Amino acid sequence: MTITLARRAQRMTPSVIREILKIAERPGIISLAGGLPSPDTFPIEALRAASEAVLRDHPREAMQYAASEGFMPLREWVAAQLRDQGMRADPDQILITNGSQQGLDLVGKALIDAGSVVAVEAPTYLGALQAFTPYEPEFTTLDCDDDGPLPDRLSLAKAARFLYVLPNFQNPSGRCVSNSRRADLAAAARALGLPIVEDNPYGELWFDAAPPPAIAAAWPEATIYLGSFSKVLAPGLRLGYILAPPELFPKLLQAKQASDLHTSGFSQRLVHEVVRGGFLRDHLPVIRARYKTHRDAMETALQRHMPSGCSWKSPAGGMFFWVKAPSSVDAMRLLPKAVERGVAFVPGAAFYANQAEKNALRLSFVTVPPEQIERGIQMIADALRA
Amino acid sequence: MTITLARRAQRMTPSVIREILKIAERPGIISLAGGLPSPDTFPIEALRAASEAVLRDHPREAMQYAASEGFMPLREWVAAQLRDQGMRADPDQILITNGSQQGLDLVGKALIDAGSVVAVEAPTYLGALQAFTPYEPEFTTLDCDDDGPLPDRLSLAKAARFLYVLPNFQNPSGRCVSNSRRADLAAAARALGLPIVEDNPYGELWFDAAPPPAIAAAWPEATIYLGSFSKVLAPGLRLGYILAPPELFPKLLQAKQASDLHTSGFSQRLVHEVVRGGFLRDHLPVIRARYKTHRDAMETALQRHMPSGCSWKSPAGGMFFWVKAPSSVDAMRLLPKAVERGVAFVPGAAFYANQAEKNALRLSFVTVPPEQIERGIQMIADALRA
Repeated sequence: MTITLARRAQRMTPSVIREILKIAERPGIISLAGGLPSPDTFPIEALRAASEAVLRDHPREAMQYAASEGFMPLREWVAAQLRDQGMRADPDQILITNGSQQGLDLVGKALIDAGSVVAVEAPTYLGALQAFTPYEPEFTTLDCDDDGPLPDRLSLAKAARFLYVLPNFQNPSGRCVSNSRRADLAAAARALGLPIVEDNPYGELWFDAAPPPAIAAAWPEATIYLGSFSKVLAPGLRLGYILAPPELFPKLLQAKQASDLHTSGFSQRLVHEVVRGGFLRDHLPVIRARYKTHRDAMETALQRHMPSGCSWKSPAGGMFFWVKAPSSVDAMRLLPKAVERGVAFVPGAAFYANQAEKNALRLSFVTVPPEQIERGIQMIADALRA
Repeated sequence: MTITLARRAQRMTPSVIREILKIAERPGIISLAGGLPSPDTFPIEALRAASEAVLRDHPREAMQYAASEGFMPLREWVAAQLRDQGMRADPDQILITNGSQQGLDLVGKALIDAGSVVAVEAPTYLGALQAFTPYEPEFTTLDCDDDGPLPDRLSLAKAARFLYVLPNFQNPSGRCVSNSRRADLAAAARALGLPIVEDNPYGELWFDAAPPPAIAAAWPEATIYLGSFSKVLAPGLRLGYILAPPELFPKLLQAKQASDLHTSGFSQRLVHEVVRGGFLRDHLPVIRARYKTHRDAMETALQRHMPSGCSWKSPAGGMFFWVKAPSSVDAMRLLPKAVERGVAFVPGAAFYANQAEKNALRLSFVTVPPEQIERGIQMIADALRA
């Protein structure tokens, strides 16, 4: 090629999930693969009214260049929310991003050198691996149980730039880290001086009880906390945020300036207009109730159809079941057989930085209606039996 | 600090311009500093109608996760525009970005290793230096005259990953590279196998005649061309695009996925809705006429007030005058004296990668009304005389 690529570009590869989603978009395929929120939950009327209000009252400000930090009233709103959840959060610590994926990129830009160690869970969020990889880290995978990373293994990550953790209804495993495990993790991280990157896109999507307080509440000096409006309003707006320790904030801000100057002022004002009057108080229970029904439908279908030797835990929130097939099954090889039958899922191997478990399947229960969930699970079960 | 920063973070520093803009925002200051388009040119009514149409006809699609490449009808529209301007452009080569600043970041991510040489003009766009710097390049500055980089100096950039050039009404110098110089640059780059990154945010803002065809038209195999909707519609939408050679496109796309998954689908549909019926045909002449009046007002004011020894060329488009004071003047030290008098500008030294000319001032003529331009120039002249 005429054009010489950066070394890091060799590591950047097409997203497995994006490739699978292309298959899943074929007409007639029931997709349990995507991590797409149900569009039935998008508050279209509220967005319409907000768009009218912003374009009526502040059109020039919304359409002009704006501060890299973000729209101050939205930063204030976010900080107040986080304080309500027990975190230390000043508006000056909030950086508005293009979705929390950009938050991950900015963290990578500010903290990862080529060869830096980054500690992750097993499994972990694929998008975070993709965001960090261009900065050429070495990933260290921490041993985990059903309650998340084991605190006594954190010493193995002592030299890491940070531990990346997704404690609430993790994508892909669905697990929610207990209060006592969070306390142990925060204490171990503090003892080691290990920074934590805590990613929380799903925390509001709980079904029976809110998850425990964030790790950031217990280790605020060195926890970078990421949040998102994608799952509570709509992902198409691309709006998320970082809560950063004050000493780190300026570097993340400079990384943001260098990356794209600032997040769309129109999107920020739109979202602020929607949320500022307390809209989410009524809206979140609707999403939770809906997703709980879907979760229950998938749980029922799994119990009814899955062959023996398969195991899973019913998630208490979020969007995903993590089903372990017998260890002889390679989910990547199962996928084409499932697609032949008319259903798609994501093979679990995509979610490991190092040694992958090959027999897990990530199944989204929020995108398709309950009756399709039932049929989809049946097809996966058929493919497993074949 | 508890948190260890990446080595590149040491190089990231607060934007000089952003710091100056904070001063310039003080009440009563006439700011010739910002690169802000006049909000009078923002097509608020068209955006309002477009927002209504998108939220009425395609609200769920606009609010859902979407393709990293961008919204296909908008990619098609951009490709058609570029073909009309003489470029080879297939929609599959168009990547929609969060403003062209993100285009610069993605180019840096895909092409720059630590220590890679990047060749730039003198002066050059500060935002590009900021976008590339986190990838730790070494900048080589090419000798330039009033017509842009000297083609016979390109051999000095032979080992560079690319030459970054802004041929149309450059920020900051206002210069527009001639047709013959473009041909010479393209031929020299082709002979050397030197990729070019051609940045074109201002090309549509011409006053009397459109600028010559893009360098990308003559060296399409290795020119990455960046465009933007910020100056023709509104910057608050954060919408730009890359036209990439087909062999490079997949890597820029993977860099985009890693950076923020995709650009806001709502913003993309909004802009497509505005432009698809030919809106810019009528809108661009309005912007051009307006900015030409402002340009003339600043030219008149400069001729009336500037002390002898100052020189400038009247720009044929864009947003900036580049005024050279006598070589004894340090514009950075002039700035506080100008601010005392009530006017702000950007000292030229900010726009050099290496050896800076200290006696230049960048003056924006589009943000403030003509009568303020007159007063602002008078104050700068007073400060220069003092």
